[in-house]
Parts: sequence; structure tokens; C-alpha cells
Amino acid sequence: MIAHTLGEIAREIGASLEGLAERAVRGMAPLDTAGPGELCYAESPELVDKVRGTSAAGVIVGEDFPAIADCNLLRVKNPKVGFVRAMELFRVEERFSGVHVSAMVADDVQVADEAGVGPLAVLESGVCVGPRSQIRAGAFVGRGVKIGADCDIGPNVVLLDGTIVGDRCILHPGVVLGSDGYGFHWMGDHHHKIPQLGIVVIEDDVEIGANTCIDRATLGETRIGRGSKFDNLVHIAHNNQIGQHVLLTGQVGVAGSSRLGNGVVAGGQAGIADHVEIGDGVQIGAQSGVIGDLAAGEKVWGTPARPMGRVMREKVALGKVPDLLKAFRRQEKELQALRDRIASLEGGQPE
Amino acid sequence: MIAHTLGEIAREIGASLEGLAERAVRGMAPLDTAGPGELCYAESPELVDKVRGTSAAGVIVGEDFPAIADCNLLRVKNPKVGFVRAMELFRVEERFSGVHVSAMVADDVQVADEAGVGPLAVLESGVCVGPRSQIRAGAFVGRGVKIGADCDIGPNVVLLDGTIVGDRCILHPGVVLGSDGYGFHWMGDHHHKIPQLGIVVIEDDVEIGANTCIDRATLGETRIGRGSKFDNLVHIAHNNQIGQHVLLTGQVGVAGSSRLGNGVVAGGQAGIADHVEIGDGVQIGAQSGVIGDLAAGEKVWGTPARPMGRVMREKVALGKVPDLLKAFRRQEKELQALRDRIASLEGGQPE
Amino acid sequence: MIAHTLGEIAREIGASLEGLAERAVRGMAPLDTAGPGELCYAESPELVDKVRGTSAAGVIVGEDFPAIADCNLLRVKNPKVGFVRAMELFRVEERFSGVHVSAMVADDVQVADEAGVGPLAVLESGVCVGPRSQIRAGAFVGRGVKIGADCDIGPNVVLLDGTIVGDRCILHPGVVLGSDGYGFHWMGDHHHKIPQLGIVVIEDDVEIGANTCIDRATLGETRIGRGSKFDNLVHIAHNNQIGQHVLLTGQVGVAGSSRLGNGVVAGGQAGIADHVEIGDGVQIGAQSGVIGDLAAGEKVWGTPARPMGRVMREKVALGKVPDLLKAFRRQEKELQALRDRIASLEGGQPE
Repeated sequence: MIAHTLGEIAREIGASLEGLAERAVRGMAPLDTAGPGELCYAESPELVDKVRGTSAAGVIVGEDFPAIADCNLLRVKNPKVGFVRAMELFRVEERFSGVHVSAMVADDVQVADEAGVGPLAVLESGVCVGPRSQIRAGAFVGRGVKIGADCDIGPNVVLLDGTIVGDRCILHPGVVLGSDGYGFHWMGDHHHKIPQLGIVVIEDDVEIGANTCIDRATLGETRIGRGSKFDNLVHIAHNNQIGQHVLLTGQVGVAGSSRLGNGVVAGGQAGIADHVEIGDGVQIGAQSGVIGDLAAGEKVWGTPARPMGRVMREKVALGKVPDLLKAFRRQEKELQALRDRIASLEGGQPE
Repeated sequence: MIAHTLGEIAREIGASLEGLAERAVRGMAPLDTAGPGELCYAESPELVDKVRGTSAAGVIVGEDFPAIADCNLLRVKNPKVGFVRAMELFRVEERFSGVHVSAMVADDVQVADEAGVGPLAVLESGVCVGPRSQIRAGAFVGRGVKIGADCDIGPNVVLLDGTIVGDRCILHPGVVLGSDGYGFHWMGDHHHKIPQLGIVVIEDDVEIGANTCIDRATLGETRIGRGSKFDNLVHIAHNNQIGQHVLLTGQVGVAGSSRLGNGVVAGGQAGIADHVEIGDGVQIGAQSGVIGDLAAGEKVWGTPARPMGRVMREKVALGKVPDLLKAFRRQEKELQALRDRIASLEGGQPE
Repeated sequence: MIAHTLGEIAREIGASLEGLAERAVRGMAPLDTAGPGELCYAESPELVDKVRGTSAAGVIVGEDFPAIADCNLLRVKNPKVGFVRAMELFRVEERFSGVHVSAMVADDVQVADEAGVGPLAVLESGVCVGPRSQIRAGAFVGRGVKIGADCDIGPNVVLLDGTIVGDRCILHPGVVLGSDGYGFHWMGDHHHKIPQLGIVVIEDDVEIGANTCIDRATLGETRIGRGSKFDNLVHIAHNNQIGQHVLLTGQVGVAGSSRLGNGVVAGGQAGIADHVEIGDGVQIGAQSGVIGDLAAGEKVWGTPARPMGRVMREKVALGKVPDLLKAFRRQEKELQALRDRIASLEGGQPE
């Protein structure tokens, strides 16, 4: 349990405090549920009534928020950012230094100052671990893997031979980097394995969710750009080149040899085909199936993925098709009736 | 190999036996493939000919099943339930007590009576393991994790700090509970990580499939209700509140901060968006994409998920659109012909 | 770093060399990026200009490729196969023999000659490991598991009790074989677990991607046929019978008790329902949802999956529906106009 006072928190997050500096805060909570020992935030002045009714120890608010008597306000420029900064004060990070006696570490492994290798981790020959990085329990780090500074490699993560991880990367439990790409050549009676000789490179500030898998390249590198964030159970096939600050949410899959530009965002369970080129800033809706190139800035949805507006129009239109079919059959009958009436006017017999 | 006699099995499952009590049974099999040492079941009297032809040691049948000469019948109220009960007699559960010498267990860990901690498991400070629970080989149990009674925590499972697991829970290999939720705030030039300070709570009688991941809440709890069963490779994002007896089948994904009522069922690869409310008993078809709230009892399919009947009608209607397009073009020509005939009747020229 | 000469490589892959036999090769690269120490290949004579411009040490080409002065060509029947063969010369396989001192191996485990058991692996009672097979670090091998010859069982793989793995199988990190199938029987107030008494059988030459899960059968076997290749994060439920040489790409899911014939191919994120029968050679498009039987040789796409051509026609037709709806409304107005004109000709009043 961490306790701070409102005064300390205000100082740490750069807020001006209106209220009791000595008031103790035990934790953080959403505005709706915050109790007497908790700190919350109000995104806009519209929440003034909720703030008045809260029993929270304090509320982080923006500069345009009204003052409230008997309510401790921490005033900042951006309340959400202020709240995130305050949360950081309550984060407990378990860090350790040195190599646990039960870890299996090859003789030539280099573990930098203040880095830690947890119990039952395995570090094979040639591994380098940067300053302050944490290799958690049960992780496997294969031959020649390089891990930068300030990384957090979770329990039971597997980094296979030659993988390179930048600085400040977070790999959640069960992540696998560097498994063989899925490459086979049909030889008439069997699928012959194509050796996968490349590696995986993770640039700085990348976070990768639990049980996500990234395959090594056939030749060269599968590369994940700086600042990209992947959610759980994501699949990145071999040879992909993923740009910077890319967001791939839960269960997204990217088939091989594709290129994603900077700032691409893909919703949950979206799939991207192999050998496609996705421009900067493309937004891909959840469950979409991207099967071709996309220009920078496009927003797509559906399988195959096409411009969001067009897909919406088609989905609306599809909902009208059952009625359209009925109306069309009715119209055909009416047409026949008109034909008969015309024929009769023409002096002939109904058709 | 476990062997029972028909008499023993009948007694254990509460069946009345018509046949040889001493007949030995080595195992269980489906009716179609059961051999002389095996026990099977027939769900309805319509299977009487198959039962007559079987070489099985015995057949579990219902009360309305006809008697058959020379065939050992175990008569129960519900044959399927009787079969499941009999299967339980043949289940071999490997259980152990105490802490394996190779496990890494912090000094203050509490392991209850008859609980077992397998080889190379890691239990950090403050962990409690309830009576008879099994922590299998290579599992990682982080600081302050509480595990109830009679749980089975599979090999290489990862339970991160603060996770709470109820009684009689089964976590299959590779499950990850308590990894950080996927939360970032764009700061103009990078995605800033939002600390994830909450925990995961698993209520009693929950079963979670292999390599499934459940993220900790940003604040408060990600909670899985009593009796829920998740299949393999399911993704549960942060802050979700999952009700009781919920069934999520293989590869289902639930984005953050959603609420699923009791008895919700989702077919394989379905996805549920963030911040939605799913009522009790909702049924979600396989591969659906739920993007909004659903009232109790709804049955939906498709992306976006809508009422099953409507989606079916639309899918049928879509199949008729290619023909409709042709018919419509034909009709336009006919309309033109009628227009011409009318113009001619009116004494004018064809348009 | 492995170095070969062009002469050695030509001899190993059965190529006729036109050029410098002594030229050293340090590695392999695609034609576009190959540098002076690298070997590449050109699939067809159309690439002659690229080959002329390359600085690669040598190029593997077909028999119909033109000779090029000052360019080292290795001529083979099939350049792609030649390239794969050459890649095999550059693959470094880390192999070890014997049981690592930190592995936990039951007394009755049989480890064949030249087989290796890595650090912190766990092999329970009754396990057999075939000749030259490698059990990597942190793998868990449950009671009675049989592993054939020349297998590679990756780090942190989990093989649960009774699993059978054939010869020359490759299991990538985090694979789980033999977890309980997802089987429950609703008892009025809870889902009662149906014991899963069967096993998983993996035939020879199967490769399984990282974090893929295959469940044991309820009774009998879940079976994966010889030569099949699964990608990462694939889900195979209980009782499935998968044929030979089946390709399941990333994140495919197969629900229970289905049968896939030989040579079936499924694109990424495709799902196959339970209790369906898929004929030999069926091709299933990415993200498809197969909900019924498919005859041999069918090519399907979509959810529900139907013949590829029909789905394409429907998708094209759907794109025309918004315009069709507009045209239909226009036509209805015109029909009304015609009706009025006819009524007027008939001497009556407009309707």
C-alpha cells in the first residue's frame, strides 16, 4: 500500500491545489466509485455535479473547472494526463538486481548494472542484457539475443536466437519472439520446410501483449518500429516491417512480408494479408480483412476492407434488400397489369 | 489403466443394472466404436439396433429404453449425465502434496494442507494456496496472489501480482492472468503508457483454456463470474465484468470495460467491442462482431452483430442480388417499351 | 557465421557453376538487397536485368536463364528449390545430447541416444524421447508422453499426459498439446465438466507454430495427420481428425469433432465449426467461417463459407445495391407516371 498526501501529489504532477495539502490518498479510482481515501479526475466542467457529490479525497480537474467549497481540487492543464501522472505515483514496480541463483546463465552472458535475471530464467551464450532491464522468472533468452536498457521481459517469455530488443521495451508473459516463419515449398508429396535464417528486431519503447508471437524473417529482419504497442495474442508473421507508433489490438494477425507505415491502427481481430503495403496513419476497423495496399490516411472496414463510409452505406443498403425484393416482385406484377391495359387500349388482347 | 466392473459402475452412477455385475470395464467409448472392454451410452430408444449390435461391455440407457437379451444395460434417468458420471470414474488425476524441492517459494508463502507445488514453479512473496490446490510445474505465481481450494493451475501458467482465484478453478497451461491492460494516451509524439493498477479476480468454479489471457484492470478489478468457462486463446481486456456461467469458446475476444451478463454464450472467434453492455443469456454467433449494447436474451450474428433472423434473411437476400440486378435492367428496358407504346397511343412520338 | 564457397554450394545443391568456385558466401539474401558476400536467386529469365545489376556473390538460376559475363551463376532445374537447399547449408542448429543437470526427469524416463533434454525441462514418469530429439529449456512433458525421433520441442512447450508425437515434428515455443477439451453439460444451475479422457496424437513431420493449442479428445484421439503444418496461435478443439499435409495458417480455429481431409488449406483467422466434414484439397479463404460439410476440392470464402466465385459475385453485387435502391425509387415514380397516362388514355382520372 502506497500513501501520498494531496500536497505531494499536486507537487509531483504540477497541479495547483485548492484544498487540504495534508489529506492522505491511498489509491486511485474512477469518479463514479471513488471512496474517501481515493483520488479521481473529472475530464470536463460538465461533471461539476458529480464532483460535488463525490466522497473522494481529491479530484484532478482542468483550468476551466469551477471552484467547489469543501472539495479538494488539483488543477492542471489536461486532467486526463494529470490523472495518468498521479497513477504513476501509485505504481509498484518489483525490480531486482543481479542474477538469481537458480537462473541458468551461460558463462559469456553480459548482464549490465542494476539489471536483474529472475529465478529459473535461462540465458544462453552471447546474450547481453542492458542496464536496469528485468528478465523475469522462467523466461528463455536464446543465443546471441541483445536486450537494451530498462526493458521488462515478463515471466515465461521466449526470445529465440538472435532476437534484438531495444530500450524501454515491455514484453508481457508468454510472448514468443523469433519462432520460425511459416514457410514451406510443396515438393509433390510433402511440404518442404524453408529455413528461416533471419531475426526479429524490436525497436525502442515497444510494448507487446501476453502470448503474442512474432516470427523471425526468412532472410533479414522482421522489424517492429519504435513506440509500437501490440495487445495480447497478436500474430506477426515473418518478414513484416511494422512502422513506428503502430497500435495492433487484441488478436490482430499480420501475414508475411507486409509493410505497415507509421501510426497505423488496427482494431481487434483484424487481419492483414501478406505482401501488402499499408500507408501511414491508416485506420483498420475491428475484424477487417485487408487484402490489398492502402494509401496513407485511409480508414477501412470489412472483409475485404474498403473505405469505412462505403462499407457503412453497403451495410445499410443490404438491410433494405429483403424489402426491395418484395417491392420488385410487386412491381413486376404491376408492370404486367400496365402492359395488359396498354394492349387493351391498342385494341389487342392482353398479353 | 483403471478397471471397474459393471456392478461397481452401476452403484457409483446410481444405475439399475440389467446384466453381468462382474463384467470388467477398462474404459469408455462412443457407441459406434466401443469394443468388448468398453462402456458406452445410448441417448434415445431409437438407437436400439445399434445397441443390439455393439460388442461393448455395457451400455448406459434411459428408463424408456427397451430391454435387450444378452446385453448389459445400466439404466438411469439421463443417459448422458450417467455417462459423464461414469467417465469421472475413469479420470486419472495426478495430484501431489507439498512443495517440490526445485520450486522457488518465498518464505512467507502459505501452502495449505494437501496442496501441491510442482517442480520449478515460482511463488513470490505473500502468495496463498488453498487446500488441495495444485500448482503445476513451471507456473509463475506473483506477489500477493491468492488461490482458493481445489484449484488446478496448469504447467507454465502465469498469475501476476495481486490476482485472486476462487475455489475449484481450472487454469490450463499457458494461461496469463493479470498482464497489463492495453492503455495508452497519445502525447503528440508517442503513446504514453497508462499505469494499470487494478487486478484480476476469478470467482469460483471457473475454467480457463490454454494460452488464454486476461488483463488486470486499470483501476479496480477485471472480474470473471462464478462458473464461467473460457476456451483456448481467448482474450479478455482490462476492466471487463464477466457474469456467471458465461461460455466463451475458442479465440473469442472481449475489448475493455464491457459487461457481460449471466449465461452469455459466444461462438468461436466472436469479438465484443469495448464499453458495451451485454444482457443475461445473450447468444452471440461465431465470428460475430458485437459493437453495441444487447438486451437480455438476444441472439445475434454477423459484423456488426444483429438479430440472428434478420442476418439470415439478409444473407439469403444478398444471394438474390445478382439476379435482381439483371432483372432490374430487363425491367428498365420493358418500362421504356411501355413508355413508347403509351406515347404512340397518345398520338405523340416514342420518347 | 558460416562461410561457404560458391563451389561448395554448387556441389551441395547439385548446380552447375558458371563463375568463380572460390568466391566466398557469408549468407543468403533476396535478389533486391543481396550484397557482395551474399547468394540470391532469380526465379525466371525475366529478371536478367536485375541479375546483371546485382552485387551478389552469386545467383541461383534455372536452366533457361541466359549466361551473363562477370556474374557467378549456379544453374539448377528449379531455382527456388535450389535456393531453399542452399539456405539449409546456412542454418545453424543448436543441438545438444544428454540431460541437462537442471532438468527434472523422472526415474523411468527413456531418453534415446543423442537426444537432448534442456535446462529446467520437466519430464514426468513414463516419458520416452526418441533418438536425436531435442526437448528445449522449460518444456513440460507429462506422464507417459511418447516423442519420436528427430523432433524439436521448443522452449516452454507443454505436452500433457499421454500425448504421442511422431518423428521429425517441430513444436515451436509455447505450444500446448493435450489440454482438456471444452466440454460441459448444463445441470440446471451450472455447467458440469465432462471429463476429457482421450489423448492427442501428432503424426510424423508435423510442424506446429508458437502458442498453438490442441486439445485432447473426450474419448479416443484428437489426431493431426502426417506432414501437416500449423502456424502460430491456432486452436484445435477436441476430437478433431486432421488429415495429412493440411495447412492451417495463423489464428485458424477448428471447433470439435470435425474431420479435415488431406491437403486442406485454410487462410488466416478462418474458423471451422464443430462436427463438419471437409473433403480432401478444400481451400478455405482467410477469415472464412465454415459451418457445414464441404466436398473435396471446393474453394470457399466468407461467413458462412460458400464457393469463392459466388461470394465474389455477391460482394460485387452488394456494392451496386445503394445505386439500385435509388434507381428503384426513381422507377417507381415513373411507373406511377405511366399509370396516370394510361388512366388518362382510358378516359378515367389519374389514380
